[in-house]
Amino acid sequence: MSADVVGLLRDALGDRVDTSAEALDAARADKSGHAAPERPLAVVHAESVADVQRVLRIASATSTPVVTRGAGTGLAGGANAGGGEIALSVRRMNRILEVRPDDLLAVVEPGILNAELNDALALQGLWWAPDPASRAISTVGGNIATGAGGLLCAKYGVVRDAVLGLDIVLADGRLLTLGHRSVKGVTGLDLTSLVIGSEGILGVVVAATLKLRRLVEGEVVTIAATFPDVRTAAAASAAVTASGAQPAIMELMDAACLAAVHALLGLDAPAPGVAQLTLQTDGPAAAMEASRISEVLGAAGGTVRVAADREEGERLLTIRRSMHPAMETLGTALIEDVSVPRSALPAMFDEIARIEREFGIVIPTVAHAGDGNLHPNFVFDGPEVPDHIWAAADALFHAALDLGGTLTGEHGIGVLKRRWLADELGADQWELQRQVARAFDPAGILNPGKVFETAAR
Amino acid sequence: MSADVVGLLRDALGDRVDTSAEALDAARADKSGHAAPERPLAVVHAESVADVQRVLRIASATSTPVVTRGAGTGLAGGANAGGGEIALSVRRMNRILEVRPDDLLAVVEPGILNAELNDALALQGLWWAPDPASRAISTVGGNIATGAGGLLCAKYGVVRDAVLGLDIVLADGRLLTLGHRSVKGVTGLDLTSLVIGSEGILGVVVAATLKLRRLVEGEVVTIAATFPDVRTAAAASAAVTASGAQPAIMELMDAACLAAVHALLGLDAPAPGVAQLTLQTDGPAAAMEASRISEVLGAAGGTVRVAADREEGERLLTIRRSMHPAMETLGTALIEDVSVPRSALPAMFDEIARIEREFGIVIPTVAHAGDGNLHPNFVFDGPEVPDHIWAAADALFHAALDLGGTLTGEHGIGVLKRRWLADELGADQWELQRQVARAFDPAGILNPGKVFETAAR
Ligand SMILES: Cc1cc2nc3c(=O)[nH]c(=O)nc-3n(C[C@H](O)[C@H](O)[C@H](O)COP(=O)(O)OP(=O)(O)OC[C@H]3O[C@@H](n4cnc5c(N)ncnc54)[C@H](O)[C@@H]3O)c2cc1C
Ligand SMILES: Cc1cc2nc3c(=O)[nH]c(=O)nc-3n(C[C@H](O)[C@H](O)[C@H](O)COP(=O)(O)OP(=O)(O)OC[C@H]3O[C@@H](n4cnc5c(N)ncnc54)[C@H](O)[C@@H]3O)c2cc1C
Repeated sequence: MSADVVGLLRDALGDRVDTSAEALDAARADKSGHAAPERPLAVVHAESVADVQRVLRIASATSTPVVTRGAGTGLAGGANAGGGEIALSVRRMNRILEVRPDDLLAVVEPGILNAELNDALALQGLWWAPDPASRAISTVGGNIATGAGGLLCAKYGVVRDAVLGLDIVLADGRLLTLGHRSVKGVTGLDLTSLVIGSEGILGVVVAATLKLRRLVEGEVVTIAATFPDVRTAAAASAAVTASGAQPAIMELMDAACLAAVHALLGLDAPAPGVAQLTLQTDGPAAAMEASRISEVLGAAGGTVRVAADREEGERLLTIRRSMHPAMETLGTALIEDVSVPRSALPAMFDEIARIEREFGIVIPTVAHAGDGNLHPNFVFDGPEVPDHIWAAADALFHAALDLGGTLTGEHGIGVLKRRWLADELGADQWELQRQVARAFDPAGILNPGKVFETAAR
Repeated sequence: MSADVVGLLRDALGDRVDTSAEALDAARADKSGHAAPERPLAVVHAESVADVQRVLRIASATSTPVVTRGAGTGLAGGANAGGGEIALSVRRMNRILEVRPDDLLAVVEPGILNAELNDALALQGLWWAPDPASRAISTVGGNIATGAGGLLCAKYGVVRDAVLGLDIVLADGRLLTLGHRSVKGVTGLDLTSLVIGSEGILGVVVAATLKLRRLVEGEVVTIAATFPDVRTAAAASAAVTASGAQPAIMELMDAACLAAVHALLGLDAPAPGVAQLTLQTDGPAAAMEASRISEVLGAAGGTVRVAADREEGERLLTIRRSMHPAMETLGTALIEDVSVPRSALPAMFDEIARIEREFGIVIPTVAHAGDGNLHPNFVFDGPEVPDHIWAAADALFHAALDLGGTLTGEHGIGVLKRRWLADELGADQWELQRQVARAFDPAGILNPGKVFETAAR
């Protein structure tokens, strides 16, 4: 039967079907550290909408599961393809089909890298705002399928705010055009929004009409402020939000992060316990805003430093950007992604401290403080997440939910968080969401086992 | 059987069940000019979530259709309740449950009027941005259910951009909590976005967690510019957008509108053919932006006038605001609502001129030019839309679709546009949307016949 599937794929798609050991192994994993236990049947490198339709028709006819992949940089295991599954890569569908500066829109294929697109747009003074830290290595289609956020999103919005329409191929191979090219529209149900963040379970995104911005004029001012402890830093970031200021970037690093990054970059070790906020203001009023924010930070107990120029600003931001590599020096990292109302950031850091004490572990944490999204890192040895780390993560998730927050601010549920999905949604909404997914994919062949476990808890 | 339903409602809800002739007649209509041919069974004035649940449990048990109503100001017939149906009014559920300035959020019941809410928020320097021209008379729940827009939405967003979470009661009476209080979150499918604009067919919105803004500091500058004809005015508005300027308001009135409003307000008649753009800039850079925009308008052929002060600004904007009453002086108005990409505004006005010629009618048109949303008004005598007007509207819809636009930018489909829904969505998407709705409401008792006709064309 699986031999048949691969044969059918080869007949239809020729050498775009890859069954080399390397390709199959690569398709088992994303960047979460998690990998499917077995190899998929084949990796298909689709080069056109018709290729995607061919794959899905064969998959439907043979009841074979399909896992869509962009660049495989996801952190939730959503793109991992395992035994008996087809890995459908859209990475080669990477053309920019249209750019309209007058309408501030672009139409692109899903496989283009975020940074590639933005390099091309910059030549016309334009910009697609979503900027995950992985922008150089992740695809626009993957950004859409995960509902990605990034450093700038508190001011400039997440993927959900930056998509006008999507073309998707359904499980049975039919092509649908969702949304429109106008900025406004309320015709029928908003399936475009529903597909954003749906992690490959509703359909394969084969084209996207993106809402662009003009590149922001004016200077960028960078501010770094250190605080005696993380709670004070969190309270300071909440004070900035409450002051009405709108920094473009506001990132928080706790002491363990800061120490690890300083060590990696060969900088002097920070004083014990010291946490840091890194902020940027931009636009015509950047300097004025930076001085207002500096006052708030100072009043909140921070030692504030405003970068003299762009170069020093870049140096200050590099500290935040070195977070992932710094974690890798410590061991295997399970990067978590809870999000809470901004005023609850200090309380969430109290909860993290409590969990650290209870489980006898250190949880280095960075936060997109401007929007209340935290990335606590659970660091351990070896490839598998140990049970006591999952127990600590469980405590973390429930703490975030109790504070009015959510399991995942930007990375998605994938396989790694599906156990907790019903805890957030409740059993009734969990079941309703599954029924909605079934309307798109009645046979359940699109990314099965992702997002939803097979049964509600 | 219908006597039974009313009896069951009375047992459960006492004098919140209204069967007076006035109440039943009022519930047949909204502000579209269209009314259901027969009276509904009863109007229930729900005062709590539990009331809404009671109504829906009875409706489910007896297979009785339920039409949810806010203030009944809709322009698509969506809230019209007819024979055999229960009209469920949530207008009395009008409390503000919580305001959090630090988190920029508020939790409200659905029946509060938009303007009431904003009056209360203004005391704390806050603001819920969606500002339909009907803000003084429409409910927040109705705004959410229609995905309303307004004058300021090109700069400050529509309802879709201003909601974090919704509590809904399903057809069978179960209460679900969708979304969260954090600004970011990608847990599972985004049912909050799906319910926004769903016109009462998925569930009854019983509470909303709204994303607020701080009131904009600085001055407001108003600009009016007249143009020899509407096409030149439309091209000028596209030039403003293309210049990168971001006015808070940019409204276009064609010659027929302008003449009707001048007549209503007792102003001198404008020269034949003259069309007008009315713009506002706001924020700290308002004056600078206003002068940049004035240059663009002048270069595009406009006679530009910048208001000397706030008072003169209000006077200029009153001309735009008097549009609805001015149309009422001409006859019955079918207010249309197509939306196109901004660069296509001039082409859309060409199409309107063509349709005027072909059908021998005048179609006074205003547009939210900042976002490409047009309101062509079909004016006729008597209560029923004549066939040749529907034929002209049909031509209008197809012209908008051909330009990459949509049937409805902000008013919704309701009953008046359901005939054209499949033309925009295609038969496959039409059917998929219906399946998605069925996942929420398997028996189809919520606002049946709205949005979807009983069969695809
Ligand atoms: C160093 C690093 C930093 C990161 N920083 C951020 C960050 O700041 N913000 C953030 O949000 N994420 C971040 N991520 C996570 C990741 O980069 C994002 O989730 C990204 O959007 C995934 O894109 P991708 O192309 O790699 O998708 P993949 O990993 O290939 O796929 C992700 C999910 O989307 C689905 N999918 C992919 N393409 C399609 C398609 N065309 N149609 C349908 N479904 C599809 C897959 O099935 C899977 O469920 C980071 C990751 C790394 C390694
Ligand atoms: C003078 C005038 C100007 C207008 N200007 C604008 C404008 O600028 N922009 C704009 O977008 N609209 C405008 N409208 C249209 C109308 O005001 C909006 O559609 C408004 O959002 C409707 O709110 P409502 O409370 O009156 O809802 P209703 O008319 O009572 O209901 C509208 C729809 O929403 C559903 N609904 C209402 N409440 C709920 C609920 N709690 N749960 C579930 N479903 C519900 C109803 O079933 C119906 O389908 C205007 C109307 C008038 C008369």
